[in-house]
Amino acid sequence: MIPDLPPIEHDHRLARLRASMKSLLVDSFITSDSASLRWLSGFTGSAGKLLVNDAATYLLTDGRYAEQAEKQTQSTQIEVFVGGLDHQKDLIADHLQGISTVALEADRVTWLEAEELRESLSSQVVSTPGIVSELRRSKESAEIVRIEAAASVADCALSELRSELGNKPTEIEFARALDQAMYDGGAEGLSFETICASGPNAALPHARPSTRVIKSGDLVILDFGALVDGYHSDMTRTFVIGESDEQSWAMLNAVTDAQELGYQALQPGVEASEVDAACRSHLANLGLADHFVHGTGHGVGLEIHEAPWINALSETILEEGQVVTVEPGVYRPGFGGVRVEDTVLITATGARRLTSAPKDPLI
Amino acid sequence: MIPDLPPIEHDHRLARLRASMKSLLVDSFITSDSASLRWLSGFTGSAGKLLVNDAATYLLTDGRYAEQAEKQTQSTQIEVFVGGLDHQKDLIADHLQGISTVALEADRVTWLEAEELRESLSSQVVSTPGIVSELRRSKESAEIVRIEAAASVADCALSELRSELGNKPTEIEFARALDQAMYDGGAEGLSFETICASGPNAALPHARPSTRVIKSGDLVILDFGALVDGYHSDMTRTFVIGESDEQSWAMLNAVTDAQELGYQALQPGVEASEVDAACRSHLANLGLADHFVHGTGHGVGLEIHEAPWINALSETILEEGQVVTVEPGVYRPGFGGVRVEDTVLITATGARRLTSAPKDPLI
Repeated sequence: MIPDLPPIEHDHRLARLRASMKSLLVDSFITSDSASLRWLSGFTGSAGKLLVNDAATYLLTDGRYAEQAEKQTQSTQIEVFVGGLDHQKDLIADHLQGISTVALEADRVTWLEAEELRESLSSQVVSTPGIVSELRRSKESAEIVRIEAAASVADCALSELRSELGNKPTEIEFARALDQAMYDGGAEGLSFETICASGPNAALPHARPSTRVIKSGDLVILDFGALVDGYHSDMTRTFVIGESDEQSWAMLNAVTDAQELGYQALQPGVEASEVDAACRSHLANLGLADHFVHGTGHGVGLEIHEAPWINALSETILEEGQVVTVEPGVYRPGFGGVRVEDTVLITATGARRLTSAPKDPLI
Repeated sequence: MIPDLPPIEHDHRLARLRASMKSLLVDSFITSDSASLRWLSGFTGSAGKLLVNDAATYLLTDGRYAEQAEKQTQSTQIEVFVGGLDHQKDLIADHLQGISTVALEADRVTWLEAEELRESLSSQVVSTPGIVSELRRSKESAEIVRIEAAASVADCALSELRSELGNKPTEIEFARALDQAMYDGGAEGLSFETICASGPNAALPHARPSTRVIKSGDLVILDFGALVDGYHSDMTRTFVIGESDEQSWAMLNAVTDAQELGYQALQPGVEASEVDAACRSHLANLGLADHFVHGTGHGVGLEIHEAPWINALSETILEEGQVVTVEPGVYRPGFGGVRVEDTVLITATGARRLTSAPKDPLI
């Protein structure tokens, strides 16, 4: 079950945003991105805009979310404005009178919205991709508690059900049982559609559960996560059902070792590409480089995939408080695949796994 | 259970897109929007790009989706290219050599992506919002079969569980039971997070299920849908648990009648705003105008919310083959709410409901 969750404070996040705006020389900021909105204001509705300038913050939404918006922002200094899109547009134009620049998250706003704002405003519209997601990278302790709770819900669900894999369910049956166990454990949702991929299906890194019956000798990849108060977890384990062949075991050992090497490489100050290299070079030494067809990991928080990215090209420097996955995999089309993944917190001196289900693969 | 689904043909959709491109005087088109990608190519991976020019169509994806991309496009003339983002960029630049204009869905591409393409290509990048979603508005018979199957899964789940509402479950318990019944009925997923909102929670149009126990006298809004082969359904029913007060019944009758009037207004050639007016004027006559705080409906297909939109400002003319919702609602903060919704197919002469659960509200 979910522990008591400490409250999340929003006003100091708005202060951090204002500091970023200052350093980028912009006077105001508008977003309608759901992760940015929630992180900055606490608002979780599906339609809203946040307008931030030096003096004030406005949350604009429509009648469907009037009550919710007031409730979710009551401990903040944010002013809520409820009205149709036309009224929202007027309010934005009014509040930007005399403001010279307005920043948009160019990576989270559509080209059309940017063009429309540019035409309707007298302020200069400038592109500031990542301005909020940069701030979201390092997690506050209240966020870590939530991710940890989500990880623990997933751990418990697997520990409850793992032995059932030996009873030869279909992929769909097992995936649904995992989902139900996560809900029963207190998840408010799934982080993504649970992957249960067996035998040749495990060769597809993003397989969807099918009606295939899990058989003796199969490799079975489970990739799943729980959602707790908006925060995600992400974990993959690969199992082998009873006796299996040498090739499956070679893949299992290779990926498990690569994942451990990636985990050991995580610490503040390290470049993300070095963590990728720690996994990738081990697999390359075993002749498996061509079978590791994706990046090593990604940040986890309000989004299941967010910055920082861990891959061969990622020059970002990892920092304390970031939460990332390490998830090398090896896939042989027609035969099967192995992936092992943890959600990991980068600490002052190294790293700590938040997902902790055992990695012993034998069922 | 799901009936046999007729195959979906993609090449003629690409031909329709090429006709649109011709009329907009553009030579090529690029999208990475998941609905556009799936509709045009059949590809369902989470990362891909489609490049369409007069002579050929290319699906670009990375190693994770190599096998899946080949499989899902095998009955089309689409060529699959597998490679990292840098290689994809090079391939796009190569194939656009000498091509003068490339169209982007400005409403579905980020400002950043549009800017990056503009900088990396010699072709002129032009904004064509809605170029694919316009084509997706009218559904083919193979699509209608899928939406109908999704609607029927939701109908059956409700008919199985409806009487359980009288046993006073929590909102979460009842929502999960509905979800499970949809999965058991063959849904591959949920169209959106199921809403089960009781008592005062029903005053929030987009409430999330809570641990509140459903009580005698409550109004209970259920809003849910199933996903079948990528296609959605959307239905809302409001129930009253046992004896209730006059105000609840007045709201129930008003909204049920408004929904019927909206349904009756649906036919080819009608402006969407007229359908909205049919619902809204009835509620206004009863003094409830201020309590109907959202639009009347939206299209349903590969996306749960898509064009055409049915609201007071929507000048779009409805056409045969479109699938839309009609969902008026009335909400009284602190007291409760009522919403009634069907997914409806516009036919040659009028309309036909695809969701058909009874509307008798009494449990």
